[in-house]
Amino acid sequence: MTAKPRINRLVVIGVGLIGGSFALALKKARMVKTVVGVGRSRKNLNDALRLGVIDRAETDAAKAVADADLVLVGAPVGQMPGIFARIAPVLSPHTVVTDAGSTKQDVIAAARKHLGAHFPMFVPAHPIAGTEHSGAAAAFPELFRGRNLILLPQKETRAAALRLVRAAWTACGARIVRLEAAEHDEIFGAVSHLPHIIAFALVHQLAQRRDAKRLLGFSGGGLRDTVRIAGSSPEMWRDICIANRTALVSLLDGSISELEAARAALAAGDGEALEAMFRAARAARERWLVRKTK
Amino acid sequence: MTAKPRINRLVVIGVGLIGGSFALALKKARMVKTVVGVGRSRKNLNDALRLGVIDRAETDAAKAVADADLVLVGAPVGQMPGIFARIAPVLSPHTVVTDAGSTKQDVIAAARKHLGAHFPMFVPAHPIAGTEHSGAAAAFPELFRGRNLILLPQKETRAAALRLVRAAWTACGARIVRLEAAEHDEIFGAVSHLPHIIAFALVHQLAQRRDAKRLLGFSGGGLRDTVRIAGSSPEMWRDICIANRTALVSLLDGSISELEAARAALAAGDGEALEAMFRAARAARERWLVRKTK
Repeated sequence: MTAKPRINRLVVIGVGLIGGSFALALKKARMVKTVVGVGRSRKNLNDALRLGVIDRAETDAAKAVADADLVLVGAPVGQMPGIFARIAPVLSPHTVVTDAGSTKQDVIAAARKHLGAHFPMFVPAHPIAGTEHSGAAAAFPELFRGRNLILLPQKETRAAALRLVRAAWTACGARIVRLEAAEHDEIFGAVSHLPHIIAFALVHQLAQRRDAKRLLGFSGGGLRDTVRIAGSSPEMWRDICIANRTALVSLLDGSISELEAARAALAAGDGEALEAMFRAARAARERWLVRKTK
Repeated sequence: MTAKPRINRLVVIGVGLIGGSFALALKKARMVKTVVGVGRSRKNLNDALRLGVIDRAETDAAKAVADADLVLVGAPVGQMPGIFARIAPVLSPHTVVTDAGSTKQDVIAAARKHLGAHFPMFVPAHPIAGTEHSGAAAAFPELFRGRNLILLPQKETRAAALRLVRAAWTACGARIVRLEAAEHDEIFGAVSHLPHIIAFALVHQLAQRRDAKRLLGFSGGGLRDTVRIAGSSPEMWRDICIANRTALVSLLDGSISELEAARAALAAGDGEALEAMFRAARAARERWLVRKTK
């Protein structure tokens, strides 16, 4: 191992839960000297400054990235093409760029197109961490500890760029895992994007009833946990879902089929069919979801 | 207020999470002298004895209820008609019977039919509490503290019976709320039964894939919380869903429509429609679900 690299200047574009926590973790690890935050919301940048998440705020990404050692693009994935296009002409040759987008095929394609000659210095990544809270005020340095960080270097990616990004996430406490972009999007479509749509849809359905307030007043811990992630950022999830829509359309077809099967069993009073489905689901949850999360 | 009634003999039929916690809470409140547990599983009854949840175990409900002051039927709702029919001939005139079923129209109809002349001593109830764990080993006396207890006395219900059941649940720390049975089933169909079906269906969908193990290995806290309630008892939930199937079929139609709308928006690349749905859902969750659960 070489010595821990030192980042003189980290630029975080999109100082939200992920970008902010990344900055805090690297500060705590004493790996970074100065953090410059870039964002659209002055209020959020002020929060970030006040809480020590960033040391300087900028509204113009192109001005901020000058002479940066590392740029983390933590904005919603729908904004990434514009951000790449805006910063590409002014990046210093040594500046490494990475992202934290929840979809990868679209982000990589946008980076390849808009970063142009700088693309070999781009390291696509996706930290598997988050809460239903957004914004710099929700950031905390331990967010990534023990969590997976998916790293997706491309054939053009320079070894030195990969090394720096890997070292930074390792310093955050993350476990590095490599995946291909298409596989990544398929996996996280199923285990993350689809559950978000389902949670949003369930609250949406209940909220549209005239008795919504009274109804939800009677809810307990079951509904609360089931729809916790419906507290997530609508803009961020719109972008993720649109970016991964091919996988999601087919996953939603599967979900609709499951609900139709349950509906048919109920309409027929077929308790056996219903119980078989519940039993298989419970067994799978116990086998694959419970142990790892304890 | 009269003095706290004393229950010499409590019989719990179905010593699971709910029945067991009820026994433990009443013991802790020194409201009960002897608890007799009735169940089908010898292992579960042994757990209950060993953990002090019950003082005596019986496998025959008819033998157990003799001379009881209070009988709580905590079995899955599908078994209740049979249990009522079995105990009706041997109940002492002073014995109060109550239940903890998650559906009420069916349970009340079964009690009216099978308890016969004893029906005025039956007090239908439903504690809004639970976890994804089942069995006597999961029981704990604080389960009902601060939670709603829905009480559904019928026009025939004797005041003394109502008083005893109310006092028992109050001693458990529950907050008593009265509802009509039809309204109860509609409300809990929406905020509890439907979310359970949706959680079971989501795990079922993912578990059927050939890459299920690898896929679920990449899941994070979002999926884990969304499907926590898919760890619940398949038999219990089969009975609840079948009992409340009229409400649930129409609720599932609503859920399928929501998913179809999301699918259509995705297929059309319509980010605006998707975001509007996500935004409305998040706002409703914040308005009606977050404050009360903090």
